Amino acid sequence: MASSEFLRIARLASRFGDPVGRGIAVGIGDDAAVLEPPNSGAVVWTVDAQVEGVHFRREWMTLLDVGWRSFVAAASDLSAMGAAPWCALSAVTCPAEMTDDALDELTAGQALAARELRCPVVGGNLTRGSELSVTTTLLGTCERPILRSGAVPGDSVWIAGAIGLAAAGLRALQAGSAPPDALSVAIETFRRPAILTASGLLLGSDAHAAIDVSDGLAADVAHLARASRVGVVLDAAALLEHAGDALVRAAVALGEEPLELALHGGEDYALVATSVVPIPGFSKIGQVEDGDRVELSQDGRRRPLEARGFDHFAR
Amino acid sequence: MASSEFLRIARLASRFGDPVGRGIAVGIGDDAAVLEPPNSGAVVWTVDAQVEGVHFRREWMTLLDVGWRSFVAAASDLSAMGAAPWCALSAVTCPAEMTDDALDELTAGQALAARELRCPVVGGNLTRGSELSVTTTLLGTCERPILRSGAVPGDSVWIAGAIGLAAAGLRALQAGSAPPDALSVAIETFRRPAILTASGLLLGSDAHAAIDVSDGLAADVAHLARASRVGVVLDAAALLEHAGDALVRAAVALGEEPLELALHGGEDYALVATSVVPIPGFSKIGQVEDGDRVELSQDGRRRPLEARGFDHFAR
Repeated sequence: MASSEFLRIARLASRFGDPVGRGIAVGIGDDAAVLEPPNSGAVVWTVDAQVEGVHFRREWMTLLDVGWRSFVAAASDLSAMGAAPWCALSAVTCPAEMTDDALDELTAGQALAARELRCPVVGGNLTRGSELSVTTTLLGTCERPILRSGAVPGDSVWIAGAIGLAAAGLRALQAGSAPPDALSVAIETFRRPAILTASGLLLGSDAHAAIDVSDGLAADVAHLARASRVGVVLDAAALLEHAGDALVRAAVALGEEPLELALHGGEDYALVATSVVPIPGFSKIGQVEDGDRVELSQDGRRRPLEARGFDHFAR
Repeated sequence: MASSEFLRIARLASRFGDPVGRGIAVGIGDDAAVLEPPNSGAVVWTVDAQVEGVHFRREWMTLLDVGWRSFVAAASDLSAMGAAPWCALSAVTCPAEMTDDALDELTAGQALAARELRCPVVGGNLTRGSELSVTTTLLGTCERPILRSGAVPGDSVWIAGAIGLAAAGLRALQAGSAPPDALSVAIETFRRPAILTASGLLLGSDAHAAIDVSDGLAADVAHLARASRVGVVLDAAALLEHAGDALVRAAVALGEEPLELALHGGEDYALVATSVVPIPGFSKIGQVEDGDRVELSQDGRRRPLEARGFDHFAR
């Protein structure tokens, strides 16, 4: 059954606990959360929405997964700024027939991610709507934010996190029938993207530019190149080595090319950065150059890299 | 027609302008906005969602109104904390068939409110979905946040802003047919709620507690009383005097009681505060007492005030 809005908000407050501390003076329960920002450095702020039927289907994943994924997707933007998560507001729109137990499962997934990210939920909004959607807005803190626009020729391009696998997992789920074992890692990667906060914090003072990969690697690298007014060449062999055997196995099971999934699959929430020196835990997958071309180097040849990725309004 | 997501975001960036300044280092276009918080005082943070079919219907108001209303509804929470708006993120979910022109009209309404509120949009999210929804998250700044929990016996209860009129406007729109002139002010109040930022800032150091009225005055006063562990008695005559002739005319046209609309109508975005001394521009409508009862005083008699208001999950 579905409780009243008031009771539901009381349940949410109990679920997300009392986050007072760490720059949080007042959490859930007033007209707004009250924060005490750090005395130095910058605050970064992002919002992300996950909508049923667009970003997920309930037959593909549990509501716990939906909660986890929506939170981690938003946190990915903070990592790409080199920032540490600070706190969150969660706005949930849910169908009138959604039960308290279903809402509890969703918020359990959010709370799990919030705990792992050390990013307490300090407020939010709950409303009715015809489709389930979860909008998460996060604040993060950092000494020096890393922008998309700082890449310079001579930088190498670095990546952290799974690439292509989540797209393979999504394709396996879209295909519907029981997927082979070779796809189980891919499906799990789609359902429960890894948290890359630690990698983001390692961007430190060395990274010149960074972006999170969610539209697809090729499209997001093109965003970074455009913002920095540079060219980029990606190395296909290095990218495939970073992606690893799990992607090859998943691609074979789907009858797709691993490189295609890695470059254009999307859904990844990986991190790409540029830096002259290596970044711990990141793999080198390319080079920043003069110019404005984004290319792929493969078997000693170069070709333009099409910036296609996921587009919500593509026809 | 509908442009690609990339082009639409470029249009949005151009619509909302370049907000750099006033503690905003990086606006729309990176993974996250970059902010430089004030050195003293607190930051307050809120999120509000307006969903088509729940909070509005497109036959009731223009998309410009939808944009305005969604922004002002979120800003109302900041006013109730005694805070000045700082900056905003806007997350819009829109149906695939929504045209660029329609999206432009919506964002024009947001931009209009953002300008009036001096609260620039520094980022956001754009996604497809089956129904239109606008989720606005705002940051505000204040020296001393005013909580719901600070009311003490001996305080008076004060109100600023229209009360009951928006609910009358909503009922007129729900009735469908061409409404009489007596309802035009009410309808306009529903479509374009007034900005009460200046009133919120006047809460200054005198107000002990405040809340924004959006669920309905009786329900929101009950929230404040519960948070402060006090009783409240509202004065029906004073409330009706504050509401004014426009509410009486609208109520007569609808065949409803003005007091019923003022107490339980909702949709108002008025401000209620408690203070021993008068607050400029606010009307006195009641008294804070010992105990936990919320009552209405009318014609020399008192009765319990039912805390019913709008509930998204009421059956």
